[in-house]
Amino acid sequence: MTFDYFFRPKAIAVIGASNDPLKLGYEVFKNLKDYKDGRVYPVNVKDEEVQGIKAYKNVKDIPDEVELAVVVVPKRFVKGTIEDCGEKGVKGIILITAGFGEVGEEGKREERELVEIAHRYGMRIVGPNCVGIMNTHNDMNATFVMDAKKGDIAFISQSGALGAGIIYKTVKEGIGFSKFVSIGNMADVDFSEFMEYLADTEEDKAIALYIEGLKDGRRFMEVAKRVTKKKPVIVLKAGKSESGARAASSHTGSLAGSYRIYEAAFKQSGIIVADTIDDMLSMARAFTQPLPRGKRVAIMTNAGGPGVLTADAIDRKGLKLADLEEETIEGLRSFLPPMAAVKNPVDMIASARGEDYYRTAKLLLEDPNVDMLISICVVPTFAGMTPTEHAEGVVRAVKEVNNGKPVLGLFMAGYVSEPAKEVLEKAGIPSYERPEDAAAAAYALVEFAKAKGVLKEEE
Amino acid sequence: MTFDYFFRPKAIAVIGASNDPLKLGYEVFKNLKDYKDGRVYPVNVKDEEVQGIKAYKNVKDIPDEVELAVVVVPKRFVKGTIEDCGEKGVKGIILITAGFGEVGEEGKREERELVEIAHRYGMRIVGPNCVGIMNTHNDMNATFVMDAKKGDIAFISQSGALGAGIIYKTVKEGIGFSKFVSIGNMADVDFSEFMEYLADTEEDKAIALYIEGLKDGRRFMEVAKRVTKKKPVIVLKAGKSESGARAASSHTGSLAGSYRIYEAAFKQSGIIVADTIDDMLSMARAFTQPLPRGKRVAIMTNAGGPGVLTADAIDRKGLKLADLEEETIEGLRSFLPPMAAVKNPVDMIASARGEDYYRTAKLLLEDPNVDMLISICVVPTFAGMTPTEHAEGVVRAVKEVNNGKPVLGLFMAGYVSEPAKEVLEKAGIPSYERPEDAAAAAYALVEFAKAKGVLKEEE
Repeated sequence: MTFDYFFRPKAIAVIGASNDPLKLGYEVFKNLKDYKDGRVYPVNVKDEEVQGIKAYKNVKDIPDEVELAVVVVPKRFVKGTIEDCGEKGVKGIILITAGFGEVGEEGKREERELVEIAHRYGMRIVGPNCVGIMNTHNDMNATFVMDAKKGDIAFISQSGALGAGIIYKTVKEGIGFSKFVSIGNMADVDFSEFMEYLADTEEDKAIALYIEGLKDGRRFMEVAKRVTKKKPVIVLKAGKSESGARAASSHTGSLAGSYRIYEAAFKQSGIIVADTIDDMLSMARAFTQPLPRGKRVAIMTNAGGPGVLTADAIDRKGLKLADLEEETIEGLRSFLPPMAAVKNPVDMIASARGEDYYRTAKLLLEDPNVDMLISICVVPTFAGMTPTEHAEGVVRAVKEVNNGKPVLGLFMAGYVSEPAKEVLEKAGIPSYERPEDAAAAAYALVEFAKAKGVLKEEE
Repeated sequence: MTFDYFFRPKAIAVIGASNDPLKLGYEVFKNLKDYKDGRVYPVNVKDEEVQGIKAYKNVKDIPDEVELAVVVVPKRFVKGTIEDCGEKGVKGIILITAGFGEVGEEGKREERELVEIAHRYGMRIVGPNCVGIMNTHNDMNATFVMDAKKGDIAFISQSGALGAGIIYKTVKEGIGFSKFVSIGNMADVDFSEFMEYLADTEEDKAIALYIEGLKDGRRFMEVAKRVTKKKPVIVLKAGKSESGARAASSHTGSLAGSYRIYEAAFKQSGIIVADTIDDMLSMARAFTQPLPRGKRVAIMTNAGGPGVLTADAIDRKGLKLADLEEETIEGLRSFLPPMAAVKNPVDMIASARGEDYYRTAKLLLEDPNVDMLISICVVPTFAGMTPTEHAEGVVRAVKEVNNGKPVLGLFMAGYVSEPAKEVLEKAGIPSYERPEDAAAAAYALVEFAKAKGVLKEEE
């Protein structure tokens, strides 16, 4: 099975492409103009041109091999459009139009009918009632949402609007995605199939799923069991509470089910369970790092408070503070000031400079009792100092030691940290701003190491 | 007791003010130049001028009534400086210099000695080992940290660096403070006294405390019991886990104690307990709103997913989803599209415009079963629509209904939401970006309503 036609089609038709800026078909066609891996054709029954590009009355008129059709026509035209796509030989349809399964039984029936038509032609449908699909690696933005930042997380959302909200949020926060799929009503293609496809792609390092309800939970878990041996799958499930579950089932029309049952099944399938949106994003960002061989965390910091909060946060996630070797402690003692705390968390105190970060990170990474490292930096309190040198120190230590232990940054100084964050992320070290986010990332690394068998359950 | 001399002194001496940009005394004096409620004098043993202002060799030479001295001299000069301040008739000392109680027993002894000297002259000391004090309402920044954004939260931090980190973070996020106190080693003035002072100030709507360990827990709880009847007190306590507690005690030298005991005592004293930094900030920001009479929350949204996540989040905080009156449901049904969910959470769906927000908020606020309202908005998916009109709709409804029910915003669209956020906050409605933050705020309102006796424990 390949879904390449959803992510890198040779040609795309936007059926319902529009010149009216108030229509979704306007945004979708505009967003697709930068597409790099193929051609994009507007289909519009009335206009000769759409946004300056020659338009076709029908998808069948396009003199090209259209692999993907983005359908954004009014509901009453959807059925005919699907038929046209079938006759044209389209492979994949992104059906943005809403008003089907989410509105009741009649809509569900109509939805099934569309899928039957599509299958008759060997086509697959994503949607209906979705925001579309993005692939940031070839600038394919087949949605009416702003471009996501390029990254290596594949994110599939059952709520189109929340998915869009998350893209807007992550653009602001500098978090990137490789792919974004708004999966809509899942009348045809569902989470399982995308998960399977994404298991073998090059540019997706982690798979993040926002789920409200599953249609075929058993199959999902079966697929997840296979996929999580290859790639981390992180799930944020809405409807954890009873009232949330009731709301979810009325929203998507799918059964939300008891969260306890879901959670147990997720964990058994090797899925990493997130509690919040930021949890999910923090976890998914961790996988630029190697996997830990154990769950003993060393924390280094230039301020005691954040070290303590981070120790609390890793404890909440079931991880442990590493007991440092005597040799490590002596090594730290040899150059850190007397006021520094040389036990884990190592508090290098406010005077710490880049060189202290380098030497401390090196000693901690070399300690056999340390499985991973969280390097914290708050605003350096010495005038003229910026956190950039601290970040550079960490990067230098990681490169030198090079023993495959994961390192996470926790740079907590707003604007002041931004250049430092860039230094870390350029070196593949994800940098967080909140203790709980760094702890979530460390937890995710441990969980995936377990799913892959790199780390035994009870280590 | 009044601490006005710490927050609006007639004149301030910066002892150790410097012309060397690499010294803390440079930053502190520079930051104080905008001070509005009095005069600021540099004290420097060598230089005639500091940053262009005539300097004095000794605080005693200043021909003015110096109420506050910010001391940032090397440790060996601190004792003599305190004596000088006493002779000068200074009332309050902010002792930034470090190397006392936090480094061991000898330092503790020295610290006690300083306090004895100060008390002999009737002076009080904040610190040592602190970052300083800010009052944003008169531009007094007696710290070496950037100016906090002006607001109405008084924030006291036991970790200077974390306090500074939080200021940098909140400036970026647009969250404001009225006062910031880095309380340092608490050799003299402690949390209890500041809490007592802040209970009666005009411009501080909420008191947020970051605590690592208390020296006199019993007294703290007694004071808190009184203060929390007047003003909300929110506490983030580090050292919740065993490893965190161990780290905290080595960091501050004060006993961290078992968190369970702390937590129970906090709650008994009417304190609102925060789990994370963002929890603390979200809670503290809530108090521009009136207090709820119960804990039944109505949620309105233009997208199902966020509604479900928010229902989950309020459930986690022990709040309830309101059961809407039949009349409210009918009212909603009369104008919302058929695909909308008219049960709580009310999903107005993506087509919702400002007018829908207005009508829905109005109906929900008028429902006798609703104690508070969370209004959610994700990126409007209709081309050309921005969330600003939604925010305006909510503000209009609140003004019209005007029945004293708290309203919180949850606008989840990154940059796109920023103008909407401004509209809400101008009307005193705090606006959040994450479901858990809005839920924390709702929880804080309920907890303070309980502490004040507005809401009975088991309602």
